[in-house]
Amino acid sequence: MDHENKRQGMSRRDFLKISASVGVGLALGASGMAAVEKVVSPSKPATGEAPSGSSAPDATIPLYGEHQAGIITPQQSYMYLASFRLTASDRASVVRLLRDWTRFADLSSAGGTMRTGDNPLLPPSDTGETLDLPAARLTATFGFGPTFFRQDGKDRYGIAGKMPLYLKDIPRMPRDNLDSLLSGGDVCVQVCAEDQQVAFHAVRNFIRLSTGLATVNWLQEGFISGGPAGQTPRNLFGFKDGTANALHQSAEGYRDVVWAGASEPEWMRGGTYMAYRKIRMLLEVWDRSSLADQEDTFGRYKESGAAYGKKGEFDTADPAQMPIDAHVRLAKESKRLIHRRGYSYTDGVDQRTGNVNAGLLFVSFQRNPEEQLIPMLKLMQSRDALNEYAVHIASGMFACPGGLREGQYIGQSLLEA
Amino acid sequence: MDHENKRQGMSRRDFLKISASVGVGLALGASGMAAVEKVVSPSKPATGEAPSGSSAPDATIPLYGEHQAGIITPQQSYMYLASFRLTASDRASVVRLLRDWTRFADLSSAGGTMRTGDNPLLPPSDTGETLDLPAARLTATFGFGPTFFRQDGKDRYGIAGKMPLYLKDIPRMPRDNLDSLLSGGDVCVQVCAEDQQVAFHAVRNFIRLSTGLATVNWLQEGFISGGPAGQTPRNLFGFKDGTANALHQSAEGYRDVVWAGASEPEWMRGGTYMAYRKIRMLLEVWDRSSLADQEDTFGRYKESGAAYGKKGEFDTADPAQMPIDAHVRLAKESKRLIHRRGYSYTDGVDQRTGNVNAGLLFVSFQRNPEEQLIPMLKLMQSRDALNEYAVHIASGMFACPGGLREGQYIGQSLLEA
Repeated sequence: MDHENKRQGMSRRDFLKISASVGVGLALGASGMAAVEKVVSPSKPATGEAPSGSSAPDATIPLYGEHQAGIITPQQSYMYLASFRLTASDRASVVRLLRDWTRFADLSSAGGTMRTGDNPLLPPSDTGETLDLPAARLTATFGFGPTFFRQDGKDRYGIAGKMPLYLKDIPRMPRDNLDSLLSGGDVCVQVCAEDQQVAFHAVRNFIRLSTGLATVNWLQEGFISGGPAGQTPRNLFGFKDGTANALHQSAEGYRDVVWAGASEPEWMRGGTYMAYRKIRMLLEVWDRSSLADQEDTFGRYKESGAAYGKKGEFDTADPAQMPIDAHVRLAKESKRLIHRRGYSYTDGVDQRTGNVNAGLLFVSFQRNPEEQLIPMLKLMQSRDALNEYAVHIASGMFACPGGLREGQYIGQSLLEA
Repeated sequence: MDHENKRQGMSRRDFLKISASVGVGLALGASGMAAVEKVVSPSKPATGEAPSGSSAPDATIPLYGEHQAGIITPQQSYMYLASFRLTASDRASVVRLLRDWTRFADLSSAGGTMRTGDNPLLPPSDTGETLDLPAARLTATFGFGPTFFRQDGKDRYGIAGKMPLYLKDIPRMPRDNLDSLLSGGDVCVQVCAEDQQVAFHAVRNFIRLSTGLATVNWLQEGFISGGPAGQTPRNLFGFKDGTANALHQSAEGYRDVVWAGASEPEWMRGGTYMAYRKIRMLLEVWDRSSLADQEDTFGRYKESGAAYGKKGEFDTADPAQMPIDAHVRLAKESKRLIHRRGYSYTDGVDQRTGNVNAGLLFVSFQRNPEEQLIPMLKLMQSRDALNEYAVHIASGMFACPGGLREGQYIGQSLLEA
């Protein structure tokens, strides 16, 4: 049994036992937070290809590879998105934070936990709620916002010269109704897993590990389900969401649509841009509109997901057969592809209206947001039939560095090169 | 293949197809909402026993039996709790609502959906987001609050004489900090499933079906995971939560702890009381306290879940070995058992403090809340070491009627006898 297999077959509890038996101690960071020493390491470099989907709860997705995990990885069922504001005053402190985060991401991806605590007089290194739980295909994906590089005109960490070409906030759209408290940030971490408790555990410990170096701006949780057969998941309007991803799901397609180009700074090689929009969906309005109105809004049939005039979900859509303001027609007309990885959210009752507070956490990855995403957003915000049923309430744009080799930390080639 | 097996093996899509092929039409309720006709019916009455846990996504839990499902049913991973305020002006309207809800509960429990829509000029009967998804062990559990029977001294629906013996709001506790907008209600529906999208679909359609007859007061979502091995799940403090349920998990135990007594009104036969407390947990404070403090707070070891001085999670706890204010010691001293079925919640960042907004949706079922729960709550609110880390922010008490036979609707023996 090689290390890789051994690690994959290990429960968190076994992991702890092994940690104890080989005498790995607690490393206290300068922040006073306990950091972890990883015990079992993967024996082979990852290929950067998306692992095939697996619903086995102990399936793991490697942290290491040409690209970060959680981008073209088949979508897991649960997501947390956390945005941080750095309070670290110098580059060395940022490096410390990113090192700690990387160690913890490695451990969590493998289904391990930090020690519960050798010393009863200290806080446990790990919060413990996943001690009995498997890795559940956990991924952690990191992105840097524009203010990571420059804030109020100031080059905070001496990296302003390495700003990626297209990293800026999404410009204000005609129908935006953004909440600045829920938008943007210096760093964004996307955590996904097949089990919400596993995902929350990771995001919570990322927050803990940031104590003294960063504070959390906002935290969003989402879910999506394509069922055990892995069908294209449906959004809360009951329509399949992400069908168009099939148009670029090949190495060549990802290169054209997702991975940053050669003119980007070196550290963006294998990286991408993550766009985020929190879109409130007016479910009560939608649910009272007729099936014809709903299908006209998308330009697709609700049950099959096929484009108007077509039979199958993946049959090539013909915009001419759809209403002029149909969502899918506008997306086609923009002639741009993006890689969608959205989640639904629900957030109780809006006490102002008595309606359910719910919608879509739109997440897309693209190599050039200015060419791919922003024209599409503009077109849609001006003409999309969906506007009647949806309001954009938060926004973010982050540059995700390329993947890691073991021993590296996330962002190392940006902060050290 | 008998009907029962056939129904269990059917996807929602098959279900739809069969609905169409046998020509079951859309029945429009007087409220203008489309109600559904069930197509395939279970062939044998359920026993009222909890089905053994199954992680198969298409596993179903029967709606029918001596008791409602979702009470002693092994806990699913996701829950929505919805509270409604009835606006129906007469008993007949309440009956119509409960009939529609029961039909939909039956359909969802079996993995079916309402029709997406025969008539494109009408809104689809079903919102559609589970068209491709299995039943995922969905259960819907209904409870009636004190104001269902009497509001402002008025016998709203002519049923005040059938008020259960112990149905009243939980009295104000010394440390309560309750939000009235998130507490109480005329009717509460607990929806649980192994897939959050399946659970949300059901609660959303319960809300839709109530249009004109009720409005939703509040909606809470939660998650919990014991992992694939079905271990006692851990709460967000990292401690196992629900270990003491093992003390009464037998037919005799449930009779003593959960099911309403013979002196209750007839319709409560096989029923119980559902108590709800939303408990904000101060994770940041907890995470900085030492392992010794954390374990002293519960009186149990964090990793194993064993009581102080014991080895195994289920070894009989000895209060004398625990600190005088330990949570488990106080629970033992109250000498009362309750059936716990709690979920964790996370709700973004509290913008007032910058801390994560998270905690426990405490749900317990008991035959007599005045004897079992309320003394325990009082004792704990006055002395429990946990008070330093938790605040009760919402509350509710609901009487859950007994189970159903096919053809009955929930609450029928209350509203018609």
